[in-house]
Amino acid sequence: MKIRYELLKEAKDCNARLGILHTNHGDYETPMFMPVGTQATVKTLSPEEIKDVKAGIILANTYHLWLRPGEDVVLHAGGLHKFMNYDGPILTDSGGFQVFSLAKRKDITEEGVKFKNQYNGDSLLLTPEKSIEIQNKLDSDIAMSFDECIGYPATYDYCKQSVERTLRWARRGKEVFNNDNQSLFGIVQGGDYEDLRRHCVEELTKMDFDGYSVGGTSVGEDKETQYRMVSYATKYLPKDKVRYLMGVGDPIDIVENVIRGIDIFDCVSPTRLARHGHALTRYGKINLKNSKYKEDFTPVEEGCDCYCCKNYTKAYIKHLINCEETFGARLLSIHNIRYLIRLTEELRKAIKEDKVLEYRDKFIKDYYGDKNA
Amino acid sequence: MKIRYELLKEAKDCNARLGILHTNHGDYETPMFMPVGTQATVKTLSPEEIKDVKAGIILANTYHLWLRPGEDVVLHAGGLHKFMNYDGPILTDSGGFQVFSLAKRKDITEEGVKFKNQYNGDSLLLTPEKSIEIQNKLDSDIAMSFDECIGYPATYDYCKQSVERTLRWARRGKEVFNNDNQSLFGIVQGGDYEDLRRHCVEELTKMDFDGYSVGGTSVGEDKETQYRMVSYATKYLPKDKVRYLMGVGDPIDIVENVIRGIDIFDCVSPTRLARHGHALTRYGKINLKNSKYKEDFTPVEEGCDCYCCKNYTKAYIKHLINCEETFGARLLSIHNIRYLIRLTEELRKAIKEDKVLEYRDKFIKDYYGDKNA
Repeated sequence: MKIRYELLKEAKDCNARLGILHTNHGDYETPMFMPVGTQATVKTLSPEEIKDVKAGIILANTYHLWLRPGEDVVLHAGGLHKFMNYDGPILTDSGGFQVFSLAKRKDITEEGVKFKNQYNGDSLLLTPEKSIEIQNKLDSDIAMSFDECIGYPATYDYCKQSVERTLRWARRGKEVFNNDNQSLFGIVQGGDYEDLRRHCVEELTKMDFDGYSVGGTSVGEDKETQYRMVSYATKYLPKDKVRYLMGVGDPIDIVENVIRGIDIFDCVSPTRLARHGHALTRYGKINLKNSKYKEDFTPVEEGCDCYCCKNYTKAYIKHLINCEETFGARLLSIHNIRYLIRLTEELRKAIKEDKVLEYRDKFIKDYYGDKNA
Repeated sequence: MKIRYELLKEAKDCNARLGILHTNHGDYETPMFMPVGTQATVKTLSPEEIKDVKAGIILANTYHLWLRPGEDVVLHAGGLHKFMNYDGPILTDSGGFQVFSLAKRKDITEEGVKFKNQYNGDSLLLTPEKSIEIQNKLDSDIAMSFDECIGYPATYDYCKQSVERTLRWARRGKEVFNNDNQSLFGIVQGGDYEDLRRHCVEELTKMDFDGYSVGGTSVGEDKETQYRMVSYATKYLPKDKVRYLMGVGDPIDIVENVIRGIDIFDCVSPTRLARHGHALTRYGKINLKNSKYKEDFTPVEEGCDCYCCKNYTKAYIKHLINCEETFGARLLSIHNIRYLIRLTEELRKAIKEDKVLEYRDKFIKDYYGDKNA
């Protein structure tokens, strides 16, 4: 069965939407934040811990799983859910972003992208068909179309040509797609040009994908530009399909893009910040390596309902981080992911009450404090 | 309250003992294996996971906690149990072994051991009194006397002098000991000389410690010598006190030393092996990095009741270890610790049935297979 997006309510004060995503692995309210499990594991966490922070969908990376352990190993294990022992919904990306950003030498042609395997130097070719074939085998709940990821800024002409290629690649992927229990999303490109974003949306909707993603963000653009890009896409996207903004996880960006009509977010930031000893809190990001926490026997965030905050102190976590004990990164990963999920819970409440803009103002005041007051 | 050892039964076929250790944090059957939580965390595991593998006491290292975060931080946190959120019993070592083995430059005098702090180069002096003072503040359930750790082999004269120093240090520590909720163990030294071991035991028992530890093993001696050293100590130790063999965790050594009357073991091996991708199983140690496990969708050990074996396959764990994902080390740590605890459970059963020697033969046949058949 394919996923189904049910629109419950549109906010009166902005373009925010409240919805439910019905999947083969449960129904989840949106807006939603997806933790990233790059290599079939959300770094440092167990599947039970992912559930405990009330995560819905998690994201796994096609590029990484293709290289290690290989999609056939996952297929023979019975698919990604069985392989990693996670019975919640999983979304796989197309591998495109990683090929464009991680591979040192690459050769982009109409066929696809040629690059060197970073682990053994082998020549590899990722095409729209290959990306879909791998994802069909991984058997995630949602697969992504293979698109061309360009940087920012890009000229209008370059962007226009790239959008056309992304559309041709989306069509090629859709044609070979072969998994009845998996949904396929199209990716909206077009840089910061409204007519290109609109064109891309219109062509993708003709192909009738199960959901749509806004791509080409988090590639060097400033926040205002990102919000504009998102607006250009959501303005034209169909209301009855879910909208996913890829790779965006800064708390303020989640708030601002929910306001612009985004339903799903993902980002590696909560687990990456955790490994560096940083915690996200209502009153901004804190660095637990700071000596002032040495004897701070209060939780990372007062009032937080996560396992980390209910059981451990800043002083203990600071000690673990100082000693490079992985339990420290684990506790902060739990907290940071839960923080972002709580943020989406609060946004859903604000949508229900038509107080999203009010929520944003309060969020900014709390998070940035006097700095932006 | 002090701990109390209750001897339930002595095996008929060897010197193995079945007992119960009554502590302020619960009662636990012996023989027992203690997981090591060097820096107030059993590497990669949560306190709940330590409970899940049915661990009793865990060990924390005085040397490491003295250097980071400092014993006063732990004291101000309300003691080690509160600091690390563990409500089971905790034993702290004296710091002696670490000072002798980790510090690069050290100066041993009658007063104690002078050495350089490995993190900031500061000059530090660890004395019997200081070790006890730190442990009193850490507020573990069991503290260890500060002893001189010598290598193997050592001459009779050197060993004899060292035993006398260890006895003087034990007396000095006991004199300043000041924590009514903590027990203090004496450490039996004496190398592989029976009369020195006997002398050490006799002098320590006169001082009346709450339990006794066999030291001076795992310092380069072969297995037969280790077993002899242990026999020389247990032969003379009082039956109504618990006996702890420090730093020994090779499965066969646990079996052989239970046979010689040891009640408690500790070792970093299960978590260290896990970080290198090794798993302990009834049929020997396996290396999950081996390519033959790539598509092995069976558990690490068939029949094992641990979280790792009940939920994950060798293929998945191999993938995690290959990708250096810490969840792999965590799963194998759970399994390896549970393996050693299961081993002690089986030994307790064998003692009840007076079949310890029979159990040893079967253990060797299974674990080493044809190699020792």
